[in-house]
Amino acid sequence: MTNGAILIISGPSGCGKSTLLKKVYESIDDYYFSISTTTRSPRVGEQDGVDYFFVSKEEFEEDIKMGHFLEYAEVHGNYYGTSLKPIKQAVEEGKLVIFDIDVQGHDIVRKKLNDIVTSVFITTPTLEELEKRLTSRDTDSKDVIEKRLSNAKTEIKYFQKYDYFIINDDLEEASKQLVSIANVTRIKSKLFEKEKIIDNWLK
Amino acid sequence: MTNGAILIISGPSGCGKSTLLKKVYESIDDYYFSISTTTRSPRVGEQDGVDYFFVSKEEFEEDIKMGHFLEYAEVHGNYYGTSLKPIKQAVEEGKLVIFDIDVQGHDIVRKKLNDIVTSVFITTPTLEELEKRLTSRDTDSKDVIEKRLSNAKTEIKYFQKYDYFIINDDLEEASKQLVSIANVTRIKSKLFEKEKIIDNWLK
Repeated sequence: MTNGAILIISGPSGCGKSTLLKKVYESIDDYYFSISTTTRSPRVGEQDGVDYFFVSKEEFEEDIKMGHFLEYAEVHGNYYGTSLKPIKQAVEEGKLVIFDIDVQGHDIVRKKLNDIVTSVFITTPTLEELEKRLTSRDTDSKDVIEKRLSNAKTEIKYFQKYDYFIINDDLEEASKQLVSIANVTRIKSKLFEKEKIIDNWLK
Repeated sequence: MTNGAILIISGPSGCGKSTLLKKVYESIDDYYFSISTTTRSPRVGEQDGVDYFFVSKEEFEEDIKMGHFLEYAEVHGNYYGTSLKPIKQAVEEGKLVIFDIDVQGHDIVRKKLNDIVTSVFITTPTLEELEKRLTSRDTDSKDVIEKRLSNAKTEIKYFQKYDYFIINDDLEEASKQLVSIANVTRIKSKLFEKEKIIDNWLK
């Protein structure tokens, strides 16, 4: 695997990841956004191959046996995982592969592919601000919001495992930071090409 | 020294450093560009405190004795150096301190202040392209150009000592890269503030 790179984004639901990622997509043309595979049923509006790859439990377990997953986890009786094959291909094609995964997934991917991973943890300035955002977007029940807040408090403890940490306080500033990190990740990964340029300089 | 950071830019004369640095200054407000001190005479158009601090040989040697220089070197009978005091102050104020220094200066500053240094080597895609640019800007004699090209060939051998390496082939792409590196250097240096935010999250 040469030339490509992996950018992992983690952060609580409601921290603004999707909005920030849109800015990255506008700025970088050569990226591949990793789509997870899951056994849970599609929610209204979710599309297979866009939001997730939806598969049966049997298919998922067969893929686990075959070693097809880079990482996977079982959450509330459903499997969620990242297939290795499309990632491998995108990295070989020199793309910036972007993952939106949780702290646990970050740990596993970093262990397996440390050399090409850069990671960013994104969060709101305070827990209260996260609660405000989750409440005002009005998509989750009170119970789900409580669960998300409790998860957020647990996940933020692991921020030091990440290369970067962004406080999404000001959207413009936070996007500038994330886009810069994505650009720099690209620059680092192109070192192989650069060595050829040096050879040319010194010939 | 907390919160501030140092960004060192090196690269042959004619590689486009000044043009690229202008883009950084437009993008970052909280920077301090390090001005070197020299004993050589000002050239036409050069201003004291803008291009260099111009001092006498005696003053310079006194400052060496007093340990006032972060780094200095003697080149063709003239001294060139970086005074420690303004750098220290700017770093303490949390600024991004930018140095335009050569490979030798980079080595010294990195050794002394490794924890807060990020460095970038910039060059043209080929030696021929550098020659073309130096010839077309028409400010140097043929001898000076020969000397610059020979220096460039020596300096590029040290590119691996730098954190990043930019080929200034396409100005827009190269500026995007340098601005991103500058931004990321700022983000890293703000980690201290971020730890306070985490404390707040977990209280």
